[in-house]
Amino acid sequence: MTSVSRRQALRSIAGTGLLWAGTGASRAQRDGGAPSDDALTVVPRPAEMAPTRAAYEITDETTIMFDGSGAFHVATALADLLRPATGFELPVDRPTGSGTDTISLTLDGAPPTLGDEGYRLGVTDSGVTIRAAEPAGLFWGVQTLRQLLPPSVEADSERAGPWTVPGVQIRDAPRFDYRGVHLDVARHFFDVDAVKQYIDYLAAYKINHFHMHLTDDQGWRLMIESWPRLATVGGGEGGYYTQAEFRDLVRYAADRSITLVPEIDVPGHTNAALASYGELNCDGQPTDLYTGTEVGFSSLCVDREETYEFFDDVIREVAALTPGPYVHIGGDEAEELSEAEYAQFMDRAVAIVQNYGKRPVGWYQVLNADPPESTVAQYWNPSRESSLLEAAADAGHELLMSPGSRAFLDIKYNEGTELGLSWPGFTSVRDAYTWDPGAYVDGVDESAVMGPEAPLWSETLETFDDVEFMLFPRLPAIAELGWSPADETDWSDFSERLAAQGPRWDILDVNFYRSPQVPWPGGERSGGI
Amino acid sequence: MTSVSRRQALRSIAGTGLLWAGTGASRAQRDGGAPSDDALTVVPRPAEMAPTRAAYEITDETTIMFDGSGAFHVATALADLLRPATGFELPVDRPTGSGTDTISLTLDGAPPTLGDEGYRLGVTDSGVTIRAAEPAGLFWGVQTLRQLLPPSVEADSERAGPWTVPGVQIRDAPRFDYRGVHLDVARHFFDVDAVKQYIDYLAAYKINHFHMHLTDDQGWRLMIESWPRLATVGGGEGGYYTQAEFRDLVRYAADRSITLVPEIDVPGHTNAALASYGELNCDGQPTDLYTGTEVGFSSLCVDREETYEFFDDVIREVAALTPGPYVHIGGDEAEELSEAEYAQFMDRAVAIVQNYGKRPVGWYQVLNADPPESTVAQYWNPSRESSLLEAAADAGHELLMSPGSRAFLDIKYNEGTELGLSWPGFTSVRDAYTWDPGAYVDGVDESAVMGPEAPLWSETLETFDDVEFMLFPRLPAIAELGWSPADETDWSDFSERLAAQGPRWDILDVNFYRSPQVPWPGGERSGGI
Repeated sequence: MTSVSRRQALRSIAGTGLLWAGTGASRAQRDGGAPSDDALTVVPRPAEMAPTRAAYEITDETTIMFDGSGAFHVATALADLLRPATGFELPVDRPTGSGTDTISLTLDGAPPTLGDEGYRLGVTDSGVTIRAAEPAGLFWGVQTLRQLLPPSVEADSERAGPWTVPGVQIRDAPRFDYRGVHLDVARHFFDVDAVKQYIDYLAAYKINHFHMHLTDDQGWRLMIESWPRLATVGGGEGGYYTQAEFRDLVRYAADRSITLVPEIDVPGHTNAALASYGELNCDGQPTDLYTGTEVGFSSLCVDREETYEFFDDVIREVAALTPGPYVHIGGDEAEELSEAEYAQFMDRAVAIVQNYGKRPVGWYQVLNADPPESTVAQYWNPSRESSLLEAAADAGHELLMSPGSRAFLDIKYNEGTELGLSWPGFTSVRDAYTWDPGAYVDGVDESAVMGPEAPLWSETLETFDDVEFMLFPRLPAIAELGWSPADETDWSDFSERLAAQGPRWDILDVNFYRSPQVPWPGGERSGGI
Repeated sequence: MTSVSRRQALRSIAGTGLLWAGTGASRAQRDGGAPSDDALTVVPRPAEMAPTRAAYEITDETTIMFDGSGAFHVATALADLLRPATGFELPVDRPTGSGTDTISLTLDGAPPTLGDEGYRLGVTDSGVTIRAAEPAGLFWGVQTLRQLLPPSVEADSERAGPWTVPGVQIRDAPRFDYRGVHLDVARHFFDVDAVKQYIDYLAAYKINHFHMHLTDDQGWRLMIESWPRLATVGGGEGGYYTQAEFRDLVRYAADRSITLVPEIDVPGHTNAALASYGELNCDGQPTDLYTGTEVGFSSLCVDREETYEFFDDVIREVAALTPGPYVHIGGDEAEELSEAEYAQFMDRAVAIVQNYGKRPVGWYQVLNADPPESTVAQYWNPSRESSLLEAAADAGHELLMSPGSRAFLDIKYNEGTELGLSWPGFTSVRDAYTWDPGAYVDGVDESAVMGPEAPLWSETLETFDDVEFMLFPRLPAIAELGWSPADETDWSDFSERLAAQGPRWDILDVNFYRSPQVPWPGGERSGGI
């Protein structure tokens, strides 16, 4: 199996040609003096990857060289990653001198076929070179380099080397332009440091969109300066992000090639707003704050002009805070409204988002309001049958694929999982991996799919340890579905590479679920899921 | 004296008319039941200020109301200022309810004559209202309100009230659009927290430009990503700001209505750069790092193309980091260059700054290169005679006034001052106050003066305590010269208001010089300076 999938890894990505025909290594070569691919456990699997006989050892003589605007940030990110465990100085510099003993990050000379996020990574005896057309490509190449090094590179204090990068030639680019992960900070609030940690996890697996569910019945988590009580009252006991904190998060994500997608969920899921300002309710009276887990009971008053003044102010501020192209406006489970009322509201809400230069995203119910085709619809029903989605794709909408039974990271792994929900059943690690975002909904062609997104709802998750337990190891599964070529996503091969992540998570002190489906190093396999 | 100067304070600022004719109070009224002006010790003195019989006590019922885009930031700044000492909740909200028991910050209804920084402040029995046309005006109004409250409002933990704002009507706007203070972080480095503290001090006295001297022979203090060794090597033992840290400082200043003016001093004062990159030297060899205090010995190689590539890269990055209109390029004491070489370099340097959309500023020697008239020249020679400056003003240049014997905050107060330099003599507090930035250089009309700027060089200042000792109490002197009407700057009146700042600085733990020229509360006056 492994030898077959390694060979498959050498097949070209569409249109870019075959680079290193015939150089593929396999486990069968391991004992013959040929390069071993033991170290090539990269997740997501690169599009093309070929072991070579070369290898480069990072030492105290190694310099990190960069060229091109935007490469410096990536170079310092790499230095920051390598310095604690290696203890080496690893100076960051522009190209000078011999070019030996260097890790070079360069924006020159990458073939345009690599696109905005692709990269090439090559290892010789004298160094490592990563080339890309854009800084994001370099950054993803650095994440690959990180996984080529021993797990101890993740340590925050000095460890024994050697720090050998195995010989490999990689040519890589993602399958989908949008690879998203979501976090619900409304049901339970997570502070700036926790969210930064979460962003770090996404970056390591080449996720490039971070969707923050900022508002819900239970809490409004972002200061809106023109309506401050949304946060100071609607944030309840849990808290909220100041705009300075939120800008800090936006930048922290951007520094890691991740676009933040803010969600303001309307017209339902709005009790926190309704409790903050009486004028958003049809009777003019503020509701009580709510901390339960029911859904579908709240709605903005669609007949009051204050509702649209409120939403315009909110979207103006949110749009100003987030440079990315998307603003998510929820639109799910507005069960208090008739279909006509829902459409009446959504028509204006979508126009407000567009007016501030942003592209609207909504949970798939937004399609019921027949929004303009630039509106992105996020599918989350676990069913593969959806005439609504099929019609939307035909009409030109782009879709995000988040099927509840596959991509929801807050679903219990099995009946023994204490945390999480189980409304679509259970979602084992294998379940999270064995579906195709490009072919999930019957009648929807891959060309209409922007990519997969994995939501993580927090009704049952009170601590960041809880979050980690649900995120790992399913995050890398969704990440690989979004990045790697469809015909390379083989569960058996993936589960072995996934197992190799375990020691990294141990060193990073990640509270991950040791699913018995995965052959963790040193562990016994059992029959569980 | 005091009664005269109070009456003068009611005179109109140019073109805005007299507001409250005949309501001026004086110390003579103190015992007659009329309003006392004891509390009206605001520095800089407002343009028009009239005591009234009203007074408002801030209580736990007080709300801070705001309206208009940008007013929220100021409202939260006020709340953050008042909450620690008062212990009150002081909710910040948009206008609702009765409007009583409120401190209102409003951008509606201000007369356009108040300009970009002016404000009106009124006190009634039911609250305080500050109006301005722009957020900066509101922010300066808040600084005035702060000084109307007892010194204990500066405390960082709860103190006894009452928190009474005395009755007053103020109409205020600055004399000069540019009121600057400088800090040399090159000779000695001050970290981000220290610089933020410094910015807080400037804001309290309505300084609106903060000039950072970022590079000199002894250190290069800002990471330039295309030339990283400038900071990693040229920063020496002292250190440097990462670009993220510098952006944080830019924003911190902007949140306080202060524009950061970055200085990259060229072609002299560049040993730190010359030590970082050999190619900037005519012999191609890097110099040694330098920690002494001599000047005039270093220069970029004006005949090498690398010099201009370097400067273009540096200014591109600096311009991208700082949204303000100015980039300062030094230009002082390039004693290694001939006049022709200096002009050859400066022609290109000025063009590079303009190419990145910024307005060049230079120390006045830059005028020797005959730069375009949009170039701002900063005067620092202590002499009042300067044909160079007179000609420049005639040619249309704008000037910053920083005479070494008046505005340099690092000059010794007297022969007993341990810290500081004395090349232009000594500068007592009174010396720092008794000059006119609009009429200092013979033959230069006020219309050519952008404003005063007070440099603080750090050759002898190793700690932030040292910085504070030189800054206080001369900072408020320069600040008042920049803000208050020229005919209101009376030393005797000022020294009494300055004395009232002492208890605030004690509470803030500021290490200030208790100049015997100032009648500090509780102190004996002596004959010293």
